[in-house]
Amino acid sequence: MRQLITRNIDVALLPAEMERIQADGHIAIVIDVLRASTTIVAALANGATRVIPLSTVEAARARQAQEPDLLLCGERNAHPLPGFDLGNSPREYTRDMVDGKGLILTTTNGTRALEAAAKAKAYTIIVGAFTNSHAVVDFCKSSTRPIILVCAGCQGRFSLEDSLYAGALIAALGSDLQLTDAAQSCLALYEYWGPDRLAFLVANSQHGRRLSRQGYGEDIPVAMEIDVHAVVPIYQAGEIRI
Amino acid sequence: MRQLITRNIDVALLPAEMERIQADGHIAIVIDVLRASTTIVAALANGATRVIPLSTVEAARARQAQEPDLLLCGERNAHPLPGFDLGNSPREYTRDMVDGKGLILTTTNGTRALEAAAKAKAYTIIVGAFTNSHAVVDFCKSSTRPIILVCAGCQGRFSLEDSLYAGALIAALGSDLQLTDAAQSCLALYEYWGPDRLAFLVANSQHGRRLSRQGYGEDIPVAMEIDVHAVVPIYQAGEIRI
Repeated sequence: MRQLITRNIDVALLPAEMERIQADGHIAIVIDVLRASTTIVAALANGATRVIPLSTVEAARARQAQEPDLLLCGERNAHPLPGFDLGNSPREYTRDMVDGKGLILTTTNGTRALEAAAKAKAYTIIVGAFTNSHAVVDFCKSSTRPIILVCAGCQGRFSLEDSLYAGALIAALGSDLQLTDAAQSCLALYEYWGPDRLAFLVANSQHGRRLSRQGYGEDIPVAMEIDVHAVVPIYQAGEIRI
Repeated sequence: MRQLITRNIDVALLPAEMERIQADGHIAIVIDVLRASTTIVAALANGATRVIPLSTVEAARARQAQEPDLLLCGERNAHPLPGFDLGNSPREYTRDMVDGKGLILTTTNGTRALEAAAKAKAYTIIVGAFTNSHAVVDFCKSSTRPIILVCAGCQGRFSLEDSLYAGALIAALGSDLQLTDAAQSCLALYEYWGPDRLAFLVANSQHGRRLSRQGYGEDIPVAMEIDVHAVVPIYQAGEIRI
Protein backbone atom coordinates (compact mmCIF):
# COMPACT_ATOMS: atom_id res chain seq x y z
CA MET A 1 0.00 0.00 0.00
CA ARG A 2 1.40 3.33 -1.06
CA GLN A 3 1.42 5.99 1.62
CA LEU A 4 0.77 9.51 0.45
CA ILE A 5 3.18 11.91 2.04
CA THR A 6 2.20 15.54 1.76
CA ARG A 7 5.07 17.91 2.00
CA ASN A 8 4.68 21.43 3.35
CA ILE A 9 6.06 24.24 1.22
CA ASP A 10 6.04 27.85 2.34
CA VAL A 11 7.51 31.04 0.85
CA ALA A 12 8.63 34.17 2.65
CA LEU A 13 8.12 36.82 -0.03
CA LEU A 14 10.37 39.13 1.97
CA PRO A 15 12.99 38.47 4.67
CA ALA A 16 10.70 40.38 7.10
CA GLU A 17 8.14 37.58 6.82
CA MET A 18 10.66 35.17 8.37
CA GLU A 19 10.04 36.81 11.74
CA ARG A 20 6.66 35.08 11.70
CA ILE A 21 7.88 31.70 10.47
CA GLN A 22 8.97 28.74 12.58
CA ALA A 23 11.55 27.11 10.34
CA ASP A 24 13.07 24.49 12.63
CA GLY A 25 13.26 21.18 10.82
CA HIS A 26 12.93 22.92 7.45
CA ILE A 27 15.16 23.11 4.43
CA ALA A 28 15.43 26.85 3.77
CA ILE A 29 16.28 27.92 0.24
CA VAL A 30 17.61 31.46 0.11
CA ILE A 31 16.82 33.20 -3.18
CA ASP A 32 18.38 36.40 -4.48
CA VAL A 33 18.37 35.87 -8.23
CA LEU A 34 19.66 39.41 -8.88
CA ARG A 35 22.38 38.85 -7.91
CA ALA A 36 23.75 37.35 -4.67
CA SER A 37 22.42 33.79 -5.17
CA THR A 38 23.74 33.70 -8.71
CA THR A 39 27.09 35.13 -7.62
CA ILE A 40 27.50 32.61 -4.77
CA VAL A 41 26.68 29.71 -7.11
CA ALA A 42 29.16 31.00 -9.72
CA ALA A 43 31.89 31.47 -7.12
CA LEU A 44 31.58 27.98 -5.62
CA ALA A 45 31.12 26.33 -9.02
CA ASN A 46 34.34 27.99 -10.17
CA GLY A 47 36.37 26.64 -7.26
CA ALA A 48 35.98 29.12 -4.40
CA THR A 49 36.46 27.17 -1.17
CA ARG A 50 33.94 29.14 0.88
CA VAL A 51 31.85 32.31 0.88
CA ILE A 52 31.48 34.21 4.16
CA PRO A 53 28.40 36.44 3.97
CA LEU A 54 28.54 39.48 6.23
CA SER A 55 25.84 42.09 6.59
CA THR A 56 27.92 45.25 7.00
CA VAL A 57 30.83 46.71 5.09
CA GLU A 58 32.61 47.31 8.40
CA ALA A 59 32.33 43.64 9.39
CA ALA A 60 33.56 42.62 5.92
CA ARG A 61 36.62 44.88 6.10
CA ALA A 62 37.39 43.79 9.68
CA ARG A 63 37.24 40.12 8.70
CA GLN A 64 39.60 40.65 5.81
CA ALA A 65 42.01 42.50 8.08
CA GLN A 66 42.12 39.34 10.22
CA GLU A 67 42.42 36.99 7.24
CA PRO A 68 44.13 38.86 4.40
CA ASP A 69 44.01 35.80 2.08
CA LEU A 70 40.24 36.20 1.75
CA LEU A 71 38.93 38.15 -1.23
CA LEU A 72 36.75 41.09 -0.23
CA CYS A 73 33.59 41.15 -2.35
CA GLY A 74 30.16 42.70 -2.55
CA GLU A 75 28.18 45.82 -3.28
CA ARG A 76 26.27 48.75 -1.93
CA ASN A 77 23.67 50.29 -4.24
CA ALA A 78 24.73 47.63 -6.81
CA HIS A 79 28.34 48.93 -7.10
CA PRO A 80 31.54 47.42 -5.69
CA LEU A 81 33.12 49.39 -2.85
CA PRO A 82 36.52 51.11 -2.78
CA GLY A 83 39.27 48.62 -2.00
CA PHE A 84 37.08 45.60 -2.77
CA ASP A 85 38.50 42.80 -4.91
CA LEU A 86 35.18 41.99 -6.60
CA GLY A 87 31.65 43.40 -6.83
CA ASN A 88 28.41 41.44 -6.93
CA SER A 89 28.41 40.61 -10.62
CA PRO A 90 28.43 36.83 -11.23
CA ARG A 91 30.48 37.46 -14.40
CA GLU A 92 33.44 38.50 -12.26
CA TYR A 93 33.58 35.18 -10.41
CA THR A 94 35.60 33.27 -12.99
CA ARG A 95 37.80 30.28 -12.23
CA ASP A 96 40.87 32.47 -12.80
CA MET A 97 39.68 34.85 -10.15
CA VAL A 98 38.29 32.61 -7.40
CA ASP A 99 39.62 29.07 -7.73
CA GLY A 100 40.99 27.84 -4.40
CA LYS A 101 40.17 31.07 -2.63
CA GLY A 102 37.90 32.01 0.26
CA LEU A 103 35.57 35.00 -0.18
CA ILE A 104 33.91 37.55 2.05
CA LEU A 105 30.63 38.75 0.50
CA THR A 106 28.53 41.67 1.68
CA THR A 107 25.38 42.47 -0.30
CA THR A 108 22.24 44.46 0.43
CA ASN A 109 19.45 41.90 0.10
CA GLY A 110 20.95 38.41 -0.07
CA THR A 111 22.84 38.60 3.21
CA ARG A 112 19.67 39.70 5.00
CA ALA A 113 17.77 36.70 3.65
CA LEU A 114 20.52 34.29 4.78
CA GLU A 115 20.49 35.82 8.25
CA ALA A 116 16.70 35.67 8.43
CA ALA A 117 16.80 31.95 7.56
CA ALA A 118 19.46 31.30 10.20
CA LYS A 119 17.55 33.27 12.84
CA ALA A 120 14.40 31.24 12.10
CA LYS A 121 16.48 28.13 12.96
CA ALA A 122 16.13 26.34 9.63
CA TYR A 123 17.63 22.83 9.72
CA THR A 124 19.57 23.25 6.47
CA ILE A 125 20.06 26.51 4.58
CA ILE A 126 20.94 26.33 0.90
CA VAL A 127 21.30 28.93 -1.82
CA GLY A 128 19.09 28.71 -4.90
CA ALA A 129 19.41 30.41 -8.28
CA PHE A 130 18.22 29.66 -11.80
CA THR A 131 21.82 28.63 -12.52
CA ASN A 132 21.68 25.69 -10.08
CA SER A 133 17.95 24.95 -9.96
CA HIS A 134 18.19 21.31 -10.97
CA ALA A 135 20.74 20.63 -8.23
CA VAL A 136 18.50 22.40 -5.69
CA VAL A 137 15.48 20.33 -6.74
CA ASP A 138 17.49 17.12 -6.46
CA PHE A 139 18.70 18.15 -3.02
CA CYS A 140 15.11 18.81 -1.90
CA LYS A 141 13.89 15.53 -3.33
CA SER A 142 16.55 13.61 -1.37
CA SER A 143 14.69 14.52 1.84
CA THR A 144 11.11 14.74 3.07
CA ARG A 145 11.66 17.79 5.26
CA PRO A 146 9.29 20.75 4.86
CA ILE A 147 10.67 23.58 2.75
CA ILE A 148 10.70 27.31 3.24
CA LEU A 149 11.77 29.47 0.30
CA VAL A 150 13.20 32.78 1.46
CA CYS A 151 13.00 35.53 -1.17
CA ALA A 152 15.51 38.32 -0.63
CA GLY A 153 13.40 40.91 -2.47
CA CYS A 154 14.95 44.25 -3.32
CA GLN A 155 15.48 46.94 -0.72
CA GLY A 156 12.77 45.58 1.55
CA ARG A 157 10.27 45.29 -1.32
CA PHE A 158 8.76 42.28 -3.07
CA SER A 159 10.66 41.31 -6.21
CA LEU A 160 9.24 39.47 -9.19
CA GLU A 161 12.41 37.56 -10.06
CA ASP A 162 12.72 35.85 -6.68
CA SER A 163 9.03 34.91 -6.58
CA LEU A 164 9.17 33.52 -10.12
CA TYR A 165 12.16 31.39 -9.17
CA ALA A 166 10.25 30.19 -6.09
CA GLY A 167 7.33 29.27 -8.35
CA ALA A 168 9.59 27.46 -10.82
CA LEU A 169 11.11 25.46 -7.97
CA ILE A 170 7.70 24.50 -6.54
CA ALA A 171 6.58 23.42 -10.00
CA ALA A 172 9.67 21.21 -10.27
CA LEU A 173 9.10 19.65 -6.85
CA GLY A 174 6.06 17.86 -8.22
CA SER A 175 2.75 17.01 -6.62
CA ASP A 176 1.68 15.93 -3.12
CA LEU A 177 2.65 19.35 -1.83
CA GLN A 178 0.79 21.32 0.81
CA LEU A 179 1.23 24.95 -0.23
CA THR A 180 0.71 28.06 1.87
CA ASP A 181 -0.97 31.12 0.33
CA ALA A 182 2.44 32.53 -0.61
CA ALA A 183 3.68 29.25 -2.12
CA GLN A 184 0.44 28.79 -4.07
CA SER A 185 0.76 32.36 -5.37
CA CYS A 186 4.38 31.94 -6.51
CA LEU A 187 3.41 28.76 -8.36
CA ALA A 188 0.46 30.59 -9.95
CA LEU A 189 2.75 33.44 -11.10
CA TYR A 190 5.14 30.95 -12.66
CA GLU A 191 2.32 29.07 -14.38
CA TYR A 192 0.61 32.27 -15.50
CA TRP A 193 3.64 33.50 -17.39
CA GLY A 194 5.27 30.15 -18.20
CA PRO A 195 8.97 29.33 -18.49
CA ASP A 196 9.53 30.98 -21.88
CA ARG A 197 8.78 34.49 -20.63
CA LEU A 198 10.90 34.40 -17.48
CA ALA A 199 13.98 36.04 -18.94
CA PHE A 200 11.94 38.88 -20.45
CA LEU A 201 10.00 39.41 -17.21
CA VAL A 202 13.11 39.48 -15.06
CA ALA A 203 14.87 41.90 -17.40
CA ASN A 204 11.81 44.16 -17.16
CA SER A 205 11.23 43.77 -13.43
CA GLN A 206 11.93 46.73 -11.15
CA HIS A 207 15.22 45.22 -10.02
CA GLY A 208 16.17 44.22 -13.57
CA ARG A 209 15.59 47.72 -14.92
CA ARG A 210 17.45 49.22 -11.99
CA LEU A 211 20.49 47.00 -12.64
CA SER A 212 20.41 47.94 -16.32
CA ARG A 213 20.36 51.65 -15.47
CA GLN A 214 23.33 51.10 -13.19
CA GLY A 215 25.33 49.38 -15.91
CA TYR A 216 24.86 45.76 -14.85
CA GLY A 217 22.26 44.72 -17.43
CA GLU A 218 24.57 41.99 -18.73
CA ASP A 219 24.27 40.20 -15.40
CA ILE A 220 20.59 39.48 -16.05
CA PRO A 221 20.94 36.90 -18.85
CA VAL A 222 23.74 35.30 -16.81
CA ALA A 223 21.35 35.00 -13.84
CA MET A 224 18.72 33.47 -16.16
CA GLU A 225 20.93 30.65 -17.49
CA ILE A 226 19.10 27.56 -16.28
CA ASP A 227 21.06 24.70 -14.68
CA VAL A 228 24.56 25.59 -15.73
CA HIS A 229 26.07 24.71 -12.35
CA ALA A 230 25.44 21.42 -10.52
CA VAL A 231 26.29 22.74 -7.08
CA VAL A 232 24.26 23.18 -3.89
CA PRO A 233 25.77 25.90 -1.68
CA ILE A 234 25.08 25.15 2.01
CA TYR A 235 25.21 27.89 4.65
CA GLN A 236 26.42 26.64 8.00
CA ALA A 237 28.23 28.22 10.91
CA GLY A 238 28.56 31.52 9.08
CA GLU A 239 30.05 30.10 5.88
CA ILE A 240 28.69 28.88 2.56
CA ARG A 241 30.32 25.81 1.02
CA ILE A 242 29.32 23.19 -1.50
CA MET B 1 -3.82 65.38 -29.81
CA ARG B 2 -4.57 62.92 -27.06
CA GLN B 3 -2.09 62.80 -24.25
CA LEU B 4 -1.46 59.41 -22.73
CA ILE B 5 -1.40 59.63 -18.97
CA THR B 6 0.17 56.64 -17.29
CA ARG B 7 -0.87 56.13 -13.73
CA ASN B 8 1.42 54.49 -11.17
CA ILE B 9 -0.02 51.62 -9.17
CA ASP B 10 1.90 49.91 -6.39
CA VAL B 11 0.96 47.25 -3.86
CA ALA B 12 2.39 46.67 -0.40
CA LEU B 13 1.84 42.94 0.06
CA LEU B 14 2.36 43.41 3.78
CA PRO B 15 2.15 46.49 6.03
CA ALA B 16 5.91 46.06 6.67
CA GLU B 17 6.58 46.97 3.02
CA MET B 18 5.12 50.43 3.64
CA GLU B 19 8.28 51.34 5.53
CA ARG B 20 10.01 51.40 2.13
CA ILE B 21 7.28 53.28 0.26
CA GLN B 22 6.97 57.02 -0.21
CA ALA B 23 3.21 57.49 -0.40
CA ASP B 24 2.85 61.26 -0.31
CA GLY B 25 0.45 62.36 -3.00
CA HIS B 26 -0.98 58.85 -3.28
CA ILE B 27 -4.42 57.44 -2.76
CA ALA B 28 -3.85 54.56 -0.33
CA ILE B 29 -6.41 51.77 -0.34
CA VAL B 30 -6.25 49.71 2.83
CA ILE B 31 -7.33 46.10 2.29
CA ASP B 32 -8.21 43.58 4.96
CA VAL B 33 -10.86 41.46 3.28
CA LEU B 34 -11.02 39.01 6.24
CA ARG B 35 -12.40 40.95 8.01
CA ALA B 36 -11.70 44.53 9.09
CA SER B 37 -12.26 46.19 5.67
CA THR B 38 -15.52 44.33 5.21
CA THR B 39 -16.62 45.16 8.75
CA ILE B 40 -15.83 48.88 8.38
CA VAL B 41 -17.74 49.05 5.08
CA ALA B 42 -20.74 47.24 6.64
CA ALA B 43 -20.74 49.52 9.69
CA LEU B 44 -20.65 52.77 7.71
CA ALA B 45 -23.11 51.50 5.09
CA ASN B 46 -25.50 50.66 7.92
CA GLY B 47 -25.41 54.12 9.40
CA ALA B 48 -22.46 54.22 11.80
CA THR B 49 -21.28 57.84 11.97
CA ARG B 50 -17.59 57.04 12.34
CA VAL B 51 -15.12 54.23 13.07
CA ILE B 52 -12.11 54.99 15.25
CA PRO B 53 -9.41 52.36 14.61
CA LEU B 54 -7.05 51.84 17.54
CA SER B 55 -4.13 49.45 17.62
CA THR B 56 -4.27 48.23 21.22
CA VAL B 57 -7.05 46.91 23.41
CA GLU B 58 -5.87 49.26 26.17
CA ALA B 59 -6.21 52.32 23.91
CA ALA B 60 -9.65 51.12 22.81
CA ARG B 61 -10.88 50.68 26.39
CA ALA B 62 -9.39 54.03 27.46
CA ARG B 63 -11.11 55.83 24.58
CA GLN B 64 -14.47 54.33 25.47
CA ALA B 65 -14.01 55.32 29.10
CA GLN B 66 -13.68 58.92 27.84
CA GLU B 67 -16.61 58.65 25.41
CA PRO B 68 -19.05 56.06 26.75
CA ASP B 69 -21.48 56.53 23.84
CA LEU B 70 -19.01 54.85 21.49
CA LEU B 71 -19.47 51.15 20.86
CA LEU B 72 -16.37 49.11 21.71
CA CYS B 73 -15.64 46.66 18.90
CA GLY B 74 -12.92 44.37 17.59
CA GLU B 75 -11.05 41.15 18.12
CA ARG B 76 -7.95 39.42 19.26
CA ASN B 77 -7.20 36.00 17.75
CA ALA B 78 -10.47 36.45 15.77
CA HIS B 79 -12.67 36.55 18.91
CA PRO B 80 -14.41 39.54 20.53
CA LEU B 81 -12.98 40.58 23.90
CA PRO B 82 -14.69 40.56 27.29
CA GLY B 83 -16.86 43.64 27.74
CA PHE B 84 -16.84 44.48 24.00
CA ASP B 85 -20.11 45.42 22.32
CA LEU B 86 -19.24 43.78 19.00
CA GLY B 87 -16.53 41.53 17.53
CA ASN B 88 -15.02 41.75 14.05
CA SER B 89 -17.73 39.88 12.18
CA PRO B 90 -19.36 42.05 9.47
CA ARG B 91 -22.63 40.19 10.12
CA GLU B 92 -22.90 41.85 13.53
CA TYR B 93 -22.84 45.37 12.08
CA THR B 94 -26.55 45.59 11.23
CA ARG B 95 -28.49 48.84 10.98
CA ASP B 96 -30.26 47.98 14.26
CA MET B 97 -26.92 47.72 15.97
CA VAL B 98 -24.88 50.62 14.57
CA ASP B 99 -27.16 53.23 12.97
CA GLY B 100 -26.29 56.69 14.25
CA LYS B 101 -23.50 55.41 16.50
CA GLY B 102 -19.75 55.95 16.64
CA LEU B 103 -17.49 52.89 16.91
CA ILE B 104 -14.08 52.10 18.29
CA LEU B 105 -12.50 49.21 16.39
CA THR B 106 -9.35 47.35 17.36
CA THR B 107 -8.25 44.46 15.11
CA THR B 108 -5.01 42.59 14.60
CA ASN B 109 -4.15 43.22 10.96
CA GLY B 110 -6.41 45.96 9.59
CA THR B 111 -5.46 48.61 12.11
CA ARG B 112 -1.79 48.02 11.39
CA ALA B 113 -2.34 48.56 7.67
CA LEU B 114 -4.24 51.82 8.29
CA GLU B 115 -1.44 53.06 10.52
CA ALA B 116 1.20 52.07 7.98
CA ALA B 117 -0.63 54.06 5.28
CA ALA B 118 -0.90 57.10 7.56
CA LYS B 119 2.77 56.86 8.53
CA ALA B 120 3.77 56.77 4.85
CA LYS B 121 1.92 60.10 4.47
CA ALA B 122 -0.63 59.01 1.86
CA TYR B 123 -2.71 61.92 0.57
CA THR B 124 -6.05 60.12 0.97
CA ILE B 125 -6.56 56.82 2.75
CA ILE B 126 -9.65 54.79 1.91
CA VAL B 127 -10.85 51.33 2.91
CA GLY B 128 -11.46 48.75 0.20
CA ALA B 129 -13.36 45.46 0.33
CA PHE B 130 -15.11 43.26 -2.21
CA THR B 131 -18.37 44.62 -0.78
CA ASN B 132 -17.61 48.18 -1.93
CA SER B 133 -15.24 47.58 -4.84
CA HIS B 134 -17.24 49.46 -7.46
CA ALA B 135 -17.38 52.57 -5.24
CA VAL B 136 -13.61 52.30 -4.66
CA VAL B 137 -12.91 52.04 -8.39
CA ASP B 138 -15.14 55.07 -9.08
CA PHE B 139 -13.35 57.02 -6.36
CA CYS B 140 -9.97 56.16 -7.89
CA LYS B 141 -11.13 57.05 -11.40
CA SER B 142 -12.24 60.49 -10.20
CA SER B 143 -8.57 61.41 -9.66
CA THR B 144 -5.25 60.91 -11.44
CA ARG B 145 -3.21 60.47 -8.31
CA PRO B 146 -0.92 57.44 -8.04
CA ILE B 147 -2.34 54.57 -6.03
CA ILE B 148 -0.84 52.37 -3.35
CA LEU B 149 -2.81 49.31 -2.28
CA VAL B 150 -1.94 48.29 1.27
CA CYS B 151 -2.66 44.64 2.02
CA ALA B 152 -3.11 43.89 5.71
CA GLY B 153 -2.07 40.26 5.38
CA CYS B 154 -2.60 37.92 8.31
CA GLN B 155 -0.38 37.99 11.37
CA GLY B 156 2.51 39.52 9.49
CA ARG B 157 2.20 37.03 6.62
CA PHE B 158 1.12 37.43 3.00
CA SER B 159 -2.56 36.62 2.51
CA LEU B 160 -4.14 35.45 -0.71
CA GLU B 161 -7.50 37.19 -0.19
CA ASP B 162 -6.02 40.68 0.09
CA SER B 163 -3.76 40.19 -2.94
CA LEU B 164 -6.62 38.83 -5.04
CA TYR B 165 -8.70 41.87 -4.14
CA ALA B 166 -5.76 44.11 -5.09
CA GLY B 167 -5.58 42.29 -8.44
CA ALA B 168 -9.32 42.63 -9.02
CA LEU B 169 -9.11 46.35 -8.31
CA ILE B 170 -6.17 46.84 -10.68
CA ALA B 171 -8.05 44.93 -13.39
CA ALA B 172 -11.02 47.25 -12.90
CA LEU B 173 -8.86 50.39 -13.09
CA GLY B 174 -8.30 49.73 -16.77
CA SER B 175 -5.27 50.31 -18.93
CA ASP B 176 -2.59 53.02 -19.07
CA LEU B 177 -1.28 51.83 -15.74
CA GLN B 178 2.37 51.64 -14.71
CA LEU B 179 2.55 48.63 -12.41
CA THR B 180 5.29 47.75 -9.95
CA ASP B 181 6.38 44.11 -9.57
CA ALA B 182 3.90 43.63 -6.73
CA ALA B 183 1.02 45.26 -8.63
CA GLN B 184 1.78 43.24 -11.76
CA SER B 185 1.85 40.06 -9.65
CA CYS B 186 -1.50 40.75 -7.96
CA LEU B 187 -3.08 41.39 -11.35
CA ALA B 188 -1.55 38.14 -12.65
CA LEU B 189 -2.93 36.18 -9.68
CA TYR B 190 -6.39 37.60 -10.29
CA GLU B 191 -6.23 36.85 -14.02
CA TYR B 192 -4.77 33.38 -13.43
CA TRP B 193 -7.68 32.27 -11.28
CA GLY B 194 -10.41 34.52 -12.71
CA PRO B 195 -13.36 36.09 -10.90
CA ASP B 196 -15.44 32.91 -10.64
CA ARG B 197 -12.98 31.11 -8.40
CA LEU B 198 -12.36 33.93 -5.92
CA ALA B 199 -14.90 32.84 -3.31
CA PHE B 200 -13.59 29.27 -3.34
CA LEU B 201 -9.97 30.41 -3.11
CA VAL B 202 -10.63 32.80 -0.24
CA ALA B 203 -12.60 30.17 1.69
CA ASN B 204 -9.64 27.82 1.25
CA SER B 205 -6.90 30.37 1.93
CA GLN B 206 -4.92 30.09 5.17
CA HIS B 207 -6.89 32.91 6.75
CA GLY B 208 -10.21 31.56 5.44
CA ARG B 209 -9.57 28.10 6.89
CA ARG B 210 -8.43 29.63 10.17
CA LEU B 211 -11.63 31.66 10.47
CA SER B 212 -13.71 28.57 9.73
CA ARG B 213 -11.91 26.62 12.43
CA GLN B 214 -12.61 29.46 14.86
CA GLY B 215 -16.32 29.47 14.08
CA TYR B 216 -16.46 32.46 11.73
CA GLY B 217 -16.73 30.62 8.42
CA GLU B 218 -20.03 32.35 7.67
CA ASP B 219 -18.21 35.68 7.47
CA ILE B 220 -16.37 34.54 4.34
CA PRO B 221 -19.30 34.54 1.86
CA VAL B 222 -20.35 37.89 3.37
CA ALA B 223 -16.88 39.29 2.65
CA MET B 224 -17.10 37.95 -0.91
CA GLU B 225 -20.38 39.69 -1.80
CA ILE B 226 -19.35 42.01 -4.61
CA ASP B 227 -20.56 45.63 -4.64
CA VAL B 228 -23.32 45.43 -2.11
CA HIS B 229 -22.41 48.76 -0.50
CA ALA B 230 -21.83 51.99 -2.44
CA VAL B 231 -19.69 53.66 0.24
CA VAL B 232 -16.07 54.82 0.31
CA PRO B 233 -14.76 54.92 3.89
CA ILE B 234 -12.11 57.64 4.26
CA TYR B 235 -9.56 57.58 7.10
CA GLN B 236 -8.59 61.04 8.26
CA ALA B 237 -7.38 62.47 11.55
CA GLY B 238 -7.74 59.12 13.30
CA GLU B 239 -11.32 58.44 12.20
CA ILE B 240 -12.99 56.64 9.31
CA ARG B 241 -16.09 58.23 7.83
CA ILE B 242 -17.93 58.00 4.53
